[in-house]
Amino acid sequence: MTGEKCGIFAAYGVKNAAELIFHGLYSLQHRGQESAGMVISDQHGVREHKGMGLVSEVFQGDILKKLTGSIGLGHVRYSTTGSSSLRNIQPFIGDCRFGNVSIAHNGNLANTNTLWKKLGYQGAVLQSTMDTEMILHLIAQSSFDGFEDAVKEALWEIRGAFSLGIMTEKKIIAVRDPWGFRPLALGKIDGGYLISSESCAFDIIGAQFIREIEPGEMLIIDENGPRSLFYAHSHRKAFCIFELIYFARPDSIIFGESVYSARKKMGCVLAEREEHDADMVIPVPDSGIYAALGFSERSKIPFELGMIRNPYVGRTFIRPGRENRNLAVKLKLNPMKSLLKGKKIIILEDSIVRGNTSRERIKTLKNAGVKEVHMRVTSPPHCHPCYYGIDFPTREELIACRMNQEEIRQFLGLDSLRYIDIDGLKKSVSKPGENFCFACFNGDYPVIPDKGLGKFILEENSSDQ
Amino acid sequence: MTGEKCGIFAAYGVKNAAELIFHGLYSLQHRGQESAGMVISDQHGVREHKGMGLVSEVFQGDILKKLTGSIGLGHVRYSTTGSSSLRNIQPFIGDCRFGNVSIAHNGNLANTNTLWKKLGYQGAVLQSTMDTEMILHLIAQSSFDGFEDAVKEALWEIRGAFSLGIMTEKKIIAVRDPWGFRPLALGKIDGGYLISSESCAFDIIGAQFIREIEPGEMLIIDENGPRSLFYAHSHRKAFCIFELIYFARPDSIIFGESVYSARKKMGCVLAEREEHDADMVIPVPDSGIYAALGFSERSKIPFELGMIRNPYVGRTFIRPGRENRNLAVKLKLNPMKSLLKGKKIIILEDSIVRGNTSRERIKTLKNAGVKEVHMRVTSPPHCHPCYYGIDFPTREELIACRMNQEEIRQFLGLDSLRYIDIDGLKKSVSKPGENFCFACFNGDYPVIPDKGLGKFILEENSSDQ
Amino acid sequence: MTGEKCGIFAAYGVKNAAELIFHGLYSLQHRGQESAGMVISDQHGVREHKGMGLVSEVFQGDILKKLTGSIGLGHVRYSTTGSSSLRNIQPFIGDCRFGNVSIAHNGNLANTNTLWKKLGYQGAVLQSTMDTEMILHLIAQSSFDGFEDAVKEALWEIRGAFSLGIMTEKKIIAVRDPWGFRPLALGKIDGGYLISSESCAFDIIGAQFIREIEPGEMLIIDENGPRSLFYAHSHRKAFCIFELIYFARPDSIIFGESVYSARKKMGCVLAEREEHDADMVIPVPDSGIYAALGFSERSKIPFELGMIRNPYVGRTFIRPGRENRNLAVKLKLNPMKSLLKGKKIIILEDSIVRGNTSRERIKTLKNAGVKEVHMRVTSPPHCHPCYYGIDFPTREELIACRMNQEEIRQFLGLDSLRYIDIDGLKKSVSKPGENFCFACFNGDYPVIPDKGLGKFILEENSSDQ
Amino acid sequence: MTGEKCGIFAAYGVKNAAELIFHGLYSLQHRGQESAGMVISDQHGVREHKGMGLVSEVFQGDILKKLTGSIGLGHVRYSTTGSSSLRNIQPFIGDCRFGNVSIAHNGNLANTNTLWKKLGYQGAVLQSTMDTEMILHLIAQSSFDGFEDAVKEALWEIRGAFSLGIMTEKKIIAVRDPWGFRPLALGKIDGGYLISSESCAFDIIGAQFIREIEPGEMLIIDENGPRSLFYAHSHRKAFCIFELIYFARPDSIIFGESVYSARKKMGCVLAEREEHDADMVIPVPDSGIYAALGFSERSKIPFELGMIRNPYVGRTFIRPGRENRNLAVKLKLNPMKSLLKGKKIIILEDSIVRGNTSRERIKTLKNAGVKEVHMRVTSPPHCHPCYYGIDFPTREELIACRMNQEEIRQFLGLDSLRYIDIDGLKKSVSKPGENFCFACFNGDYPVIPDKGLGKFILEENSSDQ
Repeated sequence: MTGEKCGIFAAYGVKNAAELIFHGLYSLQHRGQESAGMVISDQHGVREHKGMGLVSEVFQGDILKKLTGSIGLGHVRYSTTGSSSLRNIQPFIGDCRFGNVSIAHNGNLANTNTLWKKLGYQGAVLQSTMDTEMILHLIAQSSFDGFEDAVKEALWEIRGAFSLGIMTEKKIIAVRDPWGFRPLALGKIDGGYLISSESCAFDIIGAQFIREIEPGEMLIIDENGPRSLFYAHSHRKAFCIFELIYFARPDSIIFGESVYSARKKMGCVLAEREEHDADMVIPVPDSGIYAALGFSERSKIPFELGMIRNPYVGRTFIRPGRENRNLAVKLKLNPMKSLLKGKKIIILEDSIVRGNTSRERIKTLKNAGVKEVHMRVTSPPHCHPCYYGIDFPTREELIACRMNQEEIRQFLGLDSLRYIDIDGLKKSVSKPGENFCFACFNGDYPVIPDKGLGKFILEENSSDQ
Repeated sequence: MTGEKCGIFAAYGVKNAAELIFHGLYSLQHRGQESAGMVISDQHGVREHKGMGLVSEVFQGDILKKLTGSIGLGHVRYSTTGSSSLRNIQPFIGDCRFGNVSIAHNGNLANTNTLWKKLGYQGAVLQSTMDTEMILHLIAQSSFDGFEDAVKEALWEIRGAFSLGIMTEKKIIAVRDPWGFRPLALGKIDGGYLISSESCAFDIIGAQFIREIEPGEMLIIDENGPRSLFYAHSHRKAFCIFELIYFARPDSIIFGESVYSARKKMGCVLAEREEHDADMVIPVPDSGIYAALGFSERSKIPFELGMIRNPYVGRTFIRPGRENRNLAVKLKLNPMKSLLKGKKIIILEDSIVRGNTSRERIKTLKNAGVKEVHMRVTSPPHCHPCYYGIDFPTREELIACRMNQEEIRQFLGLDSLRYIDIDGLKKSVSKPGENFCFACFNGDYPVIPDKGLGKFILEENSSDQ
Repeated sequence: MTGEKCGIFAAYGVKNAAELIFHGLYSLQHRGQESAGMVISDQHGVREHKGMGLVSEVFQGDILKKLTGSIGLGHVRYSTTGSSSLRNIQPFIGDCRFGNVSIAHNGNLANTNTLWKKLGYQGAVLQSTMDTEMILHLIAQSSFDGFEDAVKEALWEIRGAFSLGIMTEKKIIAVRDPWGFRPLALGKIDGGYLISSESCAFDIIGAQFIREIEPGEMLIIDENGPRSLFYAHSHRKAFCIFELIYFARPDSIIFGESVYSARKKMGCVLAEREEHDADMVIPVPDSGIYAALGFSERSKIPFELGMIRNPYVGRTFIRPGRENRNLAVKLKLNPMKSLLKGKKIIILEDSIVRGNTSRERIKTLKNAGVKEVHMRVTSPPHCHPCYYGIDFPTREELIACRMNQEEIRQFLGLDSLRYIDIDGLKKSVSKPGENFCFACFNGDYPVIPDKGLGKFILEENSSDQ
Repeated sequence: MTGEKCGIFAAYGVKNAAELIFHGLYSLQHRGQESAGMVISDQHGVREHKGMGLVSEVFQGDILKKLTGSIGLGHVRYSTTGSSSLRNIQPFIGDCRFGNVSIAHNGNLANTNTLWKKLGYQGAVLQSTMDTEMILHLIAQSSFDGFEDAVKEALWEIRGAFSLGIMTEKKIIAVRDPWGFRPLALGKIDGGYLISSESCAFDIIGAQFIREIEPGEMLIIDENGPRSLFYAHSHRKAFCIFELIYFARPDSIIFGESVYSARKKMGCVLAEREEHDADMVIPVPDSGIYAALGFSERSKIPFELGMIRNPYVGRTFIRPGRENRNLAVKLKLNPMKSLLKGKKIIILEDSIVRGNTSRERIKTLKNAGVKEVHMRVTSPPHCHPCYYGIDFPTREELIACRMNQEEIRQFLGLDSLRYIDIDGLKKSVSKPGENFCFACFNGDYPVIPDKGLGKFILEENSSDQ
């Protein structure tokens, strides 16, 4: 149930919704590579296409041509849980008393257990293992007669992280949870309206980025244009800092921040805090590259591309056996021996999760003759799970839960190791730091999840079962 | 919504349910070639696999090995409607307050419109376009607490043709509608129990055929073995005669009849009714072969294989253009020129639907030098739709709705044409003829369907929609 | 090197050579299912397409449309040797001093070892492991300047079985070896000419069957029409009897015989030779069906289809484990229990090779309740290898090399077993029996092969190698 | 016949030749993405595998495990000519009087027309359209008895660019043409020897880079280790400068130069030659990135990653229609609007070929608000074809053949444009500039090709053809 990295893209009132959504999802591919789906309405009926794989694989050939219509909703998804089956591909689509309704969801609900008890008793039949499905059931079982009221009632009942795109045959509704965990933005193109998880998609398809959907906002787009209402008050903002550190694209503006600038600033902040004696700053492609630029700029230490990426490493990569992890690292990223030999280098990483990949890379650098390797990391050590949609490994796997900083340095084979702290992160953004969620670093959770999260159990099953 | 050719195979208490069901479905492949699916329980959890294609294609590689468990339910399906999408592959599987429930269905419900109104108002969310899904919603929304009572209540509410396999994590329930439209049988193997649409599957996998499930019967198989109850009284039997004419495998016994014998008898009945002056009886492979044997045996006219089938014609068949239908026919079925030249022949067909294929074959035979072609058909002309699961073309396409017998003879280019009549069909079976449904021939429908069948409409949609 | 089952189809001077050849090869698919290939010339250049798989798989999509031209040569192939690689797909195509030349070959050469010594010393480079390639090298290295003379010289040097189609950009040459081991026929369509391994292909595509190519004949078709010359005298004919027994299609006429009639006569001959006390004659689909018809006709014992074939058994068939061969047999061919129980039956087979399949089928029949099973076989026991293109198992695997007739009867579990003899085969054909090759039955080989057949060795390799 | 971008990797005397060669080819993938092939010998026999596609696609699954042996030869290839068929995949493999011989070739021969006349008259049969095949025919037809002498004689007869790997069952021979157009290097691992087109492959697999093969050198590796001989004197070196500018990997050392350093120096040279008034230097990923680093370092103008690459753009990329080239550019490479708005930027490119892609990128940058775009290019304008293995478009397509520098600047929409000159390139390398081939820039060809290059014609074809 946990672990939904996702991207949403929707269109209303455009000439060729399917093509726009295709290019939008293509631009959001980094938010989910496991499956992709799209629902398109021509206002009289709804057509869908979904599949496992990348956007370009799922929508091959003539598929887009068959999805004619001016309203549409698309989704890319990544899930590391076992439930990566066909029926969990989003958007989730169902027929109910309001007609055909589709939902695309980025984030995780925190009260699924409570919801399922309620829904089960009322006779609901669930077909996926996604919390997203429950939202539609709540709408269908609502006591209200009107669709928008029913949606509002459903939103009152769910807690947790949810940026939503909801679509009927005739309208699009965009929703962001009251904490604003995940981004969601409104755009405009040729008289039509667009919804996207990130603003970069607007730039790419040549649309105008209007504004972000607000926490607690429900934006209805129909024949009368967009109408906004606030179904809940946002007492506390909790923007996911990890979107800025790693997850979002550098060419997006989310939570009012340029992702590129924020990452460069994180590098600057790290550079400011110490004296340096190194020959060059080296990014680990591609994650730490912006922070490395910032670090180099502030510290005046030259920036060099010391590790060469093989551009043909893809998903069909045949991994050499365990005994040869070093080869696996170099097939992807080969150190520039002639450049690095005998040098002291600083490498910038966005995060250290399990530590295994970093360890191999550092071993590879040392084998190539590097004299000293100093690592700087643009996130604090994290050892708390995320309940809001970022999929971290278990506590047992997270290196920061098992070792202190000195032990990690030794494990990785580094000459020095330094993390940014939460204060440094706050300095890297332009908005007030309190607006962000740092729960994966400090355990301070804005919303406490149900116990039993992720497992649907109705304990009071009938006796004859 | 119409047009479900299907096959069901289930197992309870066997060593390797998935392998048995695979071979069972393989033997029922003629009942549905579009998709196949299987759900297996090891009593603690449920695993599924579904896909478009033949049984052997869907369950390739190591898939069966991952489906471990002793209880299972499988389905093969063919649908000519547009709804041949992934989410319509059966068994239909859902979570509800009774836990995980799967349903496999052969037949068509006749009151889906009424059912949907009821379900929609109660907040149901439908994800497929199959009537089968409604049965699970009826169970989930039942007023009863016990699962079996809930199933019974659901069965009271549905009308039409339904042979069902229902599976929970711990039991199998087999159901046949009160009319008995479609077959369903009980078998036994190594202390476990099996359910199959046709008895041939039991023979093939080495199981024992115990008996057919009775019309109106609900048979529960769980740790206490099989228990039978009758949820409804069967006032009128309505066994589908088309199963005997064409649909079922010749090596099955259904409705108490040997399919092979019934078909031979149909040929005999046709032979008895006239004097003959022909050189040979020729079956149209493979459909009319048993009737041709019966006809030859009774009439003493030699049986010859006058048309040679290309065994490599498969689903990848590249059809030559429209201008060359004659080539298309001969690539599949080439007349034995040297055998047929100058001869008078009788050909046996099971049915004439649109007439186009027959016309081309007869043209081909005449081109090969046949002097006279006389066709005998083992079904009466049919011009009434089937509401119970056999997928006939529309009235406009059915040749018998557009032409009288003499016009059809001329259209097909025959020297004579004769159909069996309903009385002849009744003589071909050993049980009383009143027990069969002849609605597609005489329009006498045992169950009248809802108007609006096949379209889910809730007219009273909320005003803001 | 051994074991080439093949089919050839060529066209000259036709509108759309590729489409005709496609349908021709489609009709010859039974002669080779492993790979297919086609070369087409528009008189100014040559295009080719080849691939592993069935004709309909290899020439999918728009491939045929790209192969424009009025001259073409196609081939289907089956090889059980390890050399079923891409580069062995025929037609074999090469550039030499005569320009582009393609060769399609049915049969096996018997003097490849001698040929390779000669060719190797002259500097030839071989890229396939097919004897066919050597023919082109012999042409290229010929002492003659003219192409036709060079072909003739090459034909003088090769011995063994070869029906050949040879194609340049501007002509087609059809060749049959002086013994006439394999069939090859000439047809005509719309002013153009066709070459086919079997006449059935002409019937199917609507062409006229003119005559068979004669043993020792070389037929050149170019802008002046067909010209015939005899490059060798045919001292002894050696038509392959196994083509009539099993290999060719029943709707073909080869060696001047109707294959269908010959098979029926083999059944008659077997029926004439004994008194019978059986309830029915049952063909083993599909091989023994024509002989069974002949046997039934002559013996007056009823013909019944006692084993039902599953039409969906294809190449993706998942074979149940070894321990369950019985299931494997029944999944393909299920005995009609209700028909066979307590009966004495006669089954007709075309040949018993290893005996394993027959044994399982008979076991299956006995399990279904058959009282007595009597087998009649339309070929004599064979225990000699074929050097001319039919791929039999090794001596060790051939049951007739290991057991006498009574042992075979016991091994198969039969109540009686009787083979046709060579004399009976001679009675089944209309032409003189001396014209046929019975070497696989009696070891009387018309052409003795090289020792070392099938292995290219140049013993005198240079010392530094 | 022209246009062979290729990579060669061979191994002798290693534990698992196939795995080493796989990783070697994987590291040389940038030299050819169309097909890959490998031949492996266990000294008693040879096995091969070839296919269209990337190395990781061609050698999927268990293929490597079946290629056991300690000697092997592999190849990656890219050809833009029509001849990208299966039979042109290298290594080229054939049987001749010296046994089985394989050849892998990087470069193009310049006297194929002359060679083919000689070979054709001697009866050779060619099956590919690759000049590489002729080398093996020359060896097979040599007047020498010994294999190495025969290779030497063949090398005397060919002219042009050729780095070769030649393999028999028992030895590897590495050859470089007397001009040294293409790179080839010798490495060592665990007592075995390796040959690679570029040294980066040695680093990646953990092998030691010994030295480059010399122009005119023939290096034989067999059970006695490596032996070197010079089959020709190298009067003039002609190392391909384009390997340094663009083609080789930055982490390779070829022609005695670090590719990374050479590229940085090209950027420095360009920076030195002018005064600058720009806000930032921006690389066009990934080609101009090293030159951009050098330019920034020398000019002190900040280096920024102003265009964000979508890492999921792959070969399945669905190109938007022609009317929307701007979208196509941005889907791959999106300008950082917030960074670039109102700025003056310098972008570094390695070459301008047709100019279309550059034009779209510059349009995209201007649309994103960039004030001035200044382009600096690390190769001179080129308008001469390469006869030695780099595949440039035709003269008509090369923008530098159609426009002068000012016209190109206007066409691209630039504010200024400056190319490096040949003198600048010579300054960027550490070795004497005369050792390089600049023919594509100045038309000074070290080897003049045959007329009729690329077409095999034997004008004196026999009269009856």
